[in-house]
Amino acid sequence: MHILILGAAGMIGRKLAAALAPDHTLTLADVVPPPAFAGATLLTLDLTAAAAQTLIAGRPDAIIHLAAIVSGEAEADFEKGYATNLDSTRALLEAIRHTPGYAPKVIFASSIAVFGAPFPAKIPDDFFLTPRTSYGTQKAITELLISDYSRRGFIDGMSIRLPTICVRPGLPNKAASGFFSNIIREPLAGKPAILPVVDTTRHWFASPASAVGFFQHALTLDTSLLGDRRAVSMPGLSATVAEQIEALRRVAGQKAVDLITRQPDETIAKIVATWPSDFETTRATALGFKAETSFDDIIAAHLKEV
Amino acid sequence: MHILILGAAGMIGRKLAAALAPDHTLTLADVVPPPAFAGATLLTLDLTAAAAQTLIAGRPDAIIHLAAIVSGEAEADFEKGYATNLDSTRALLEAIRHTPGYAPKVIFASSIAVFGAPFPAKIPDDFFLTPRTSYGTQKAITELLISDYSRRGFIDGMSIRLPTICVRPGLPNKAASGFFSNIIREPLAGKPAILPVVDTTRHWFASPASAVGFFQHALTLDTSLLGDRRAVSMPGLSATVAEQIEALRRVAGQKAVDLITRQPDETIAKIVATWPSDFETTRATALGFKAETSFDDIIAAHLKEV
Repeated sequence: MHILILGAAGMIGRKLAAALAPDHTLTLADVVPPPAFAGATLLTLDLTAAAAQTLIAGRPDAIIHLAAIVSGEAEADFEKGYATNLDSTRALLEAIRHTPGYAPKVIFASSIAVFGAPFPAKIPDDFFLTPRTSYGTQKAITELLISDYSRRGFIDGMSIRLPTICVRPGLPNKAASGFFSNIIREPLAGKPAILPVVDTTRHWFASPASAVGFFQHALTLDTSLLGDRRAVSMPGLSATVAEQIEALRRVAGQKAVDLITRQPDETIAKIVATWPSDFETTRATALGFKAETSFDDIIAAHLKEV
Repeated sequence: MHILILGAAGMIGRKLAAALAPDHTLTLADVVPPPAFAGATLLTLDLTAAAAQTLIAGRPDAIIHLAAIVSGEAEADFEKGYATNLDSTRALLEAIRHTPGYAPKVIFASSIAVFGAPFPAKIPDDFFLTPRTSYGTQKAITELLISDYSRRGFIDGMSIRLPTICVRPGLPNKAASGFFSNIIREPLAGKPAILPVVDTTRHWFASPASAVGFFQHALTLDTSLLGDRRAVSMPGLSATVAEQIEALRRVAGQKAVDLITRQPDETIAKIVATWPSDFETTRATALGFKAETSFDDIIAAHLKEV
């Protein structure tokens, strides 16, 4: 299969490209140079209307769309957020629509940010779109476009709502959600980490390996099972910070846990309180999507990759 | 108050202008010449980015946005639907955002078409956005934009999800929903009407007068009561075709009912089956929005206007 990955230089993009490279023809695109794989076509470009034509010139059978600017940046820069997270995707969909006889599979990376508080204890598959960030709004709008373009037969689309990816590799980052990964990754590497929220804080996680698995599974999924409801919340693991720390203790002992310093941050605590913390992902499970079922497994997935 | 009405030449637009004209300064705009009222400014234009500047040049305190192409046309002409129902509204929102110190009330006419089957028996306020038409998709996307622009403080917005308006005045039209009005209006005028569906068909109604009332109430509503959830399903009346016919019989007797000819139409029946038929509008009711509570009242509202 010829697969185009947009946002191929990102964390998930790189891992997905590595997983798909042995069996598929890849075109990898990003605004920064994407990683090189034998036989892969590499494109460094910004996703504009003109670029969209270039991207689909080779008529990829499937397009995995991971490109986006993150939540904090979309909130700080209103115009850039809409241009990158909405208009670019629409340009791609329009380029496809204007190509006669071409209706590729399009798998769009959406986010649990399409949902905004207040929430029920577990967010069901039919919970309403209530984003409380511009990022979440842009993802929700794109989900609606993916469904409408699919219903009209222009694409065969699906939107995948990713949980928070944990453990993120790399350096600690200042994203409000960064600490969920920092408090595991840093102590495992013998380094200190800051915990800005209380231990009872609950959140919704999947490992990078699970995220890669979601897209691989979506590639082979019979989309007729989706009907007109093309956006699906992916499975994940709901865990509290205390449960994260207990899992860390089981894997790396008290000396790792001792590297975590509690340093309450009201601003971060307030932001985190507006995020979804648990889901009932009946649909995704029935469709065969799989994620970790304990935080020990999430740590194990991380240790396998570092 | 200075109020701009977009789509002022339409059925609701005309009635709303007439209701507001005595107490407010009106600017009336449409693609066809809007009705004239003493003191009202009339604009005949298409809502483009340039036109948006013209429309808000007088800094209206409130904008009531009724302009749209209808469901059937948006489904038949994909590009025109997105251009008219999505891009024009976004151009207006952007023109407002780029006007320093200006954040008008914006009341957007949305539709129950943002919801698509399958439904629960009564659609609750927190039912998810599942449009199954391009029109419904465009309305749902605009709702999301209205909420995000409001949250960011660029506008003080609200989206009003209208029930099917009944009894529509004028000539019978070929819209799939036209018969709901035709079977009342035509017999009341001594003319024949076709009923293409079975009597047990249930639908969700409000009179033109109620629709006008929704927008009048929204103009004075304290929008802080809406929080970030700016789209609200309006109250209405759930009635079957049989209940419509019984109300007609009570008002105009058996001879009016005898003017209805049953002529089943599979195509129309199939379309109607995908439409919402009943709602639980707890939020709208708590916010003070009101509609008819019996089909007799809907017929009475019609008779008052003809």
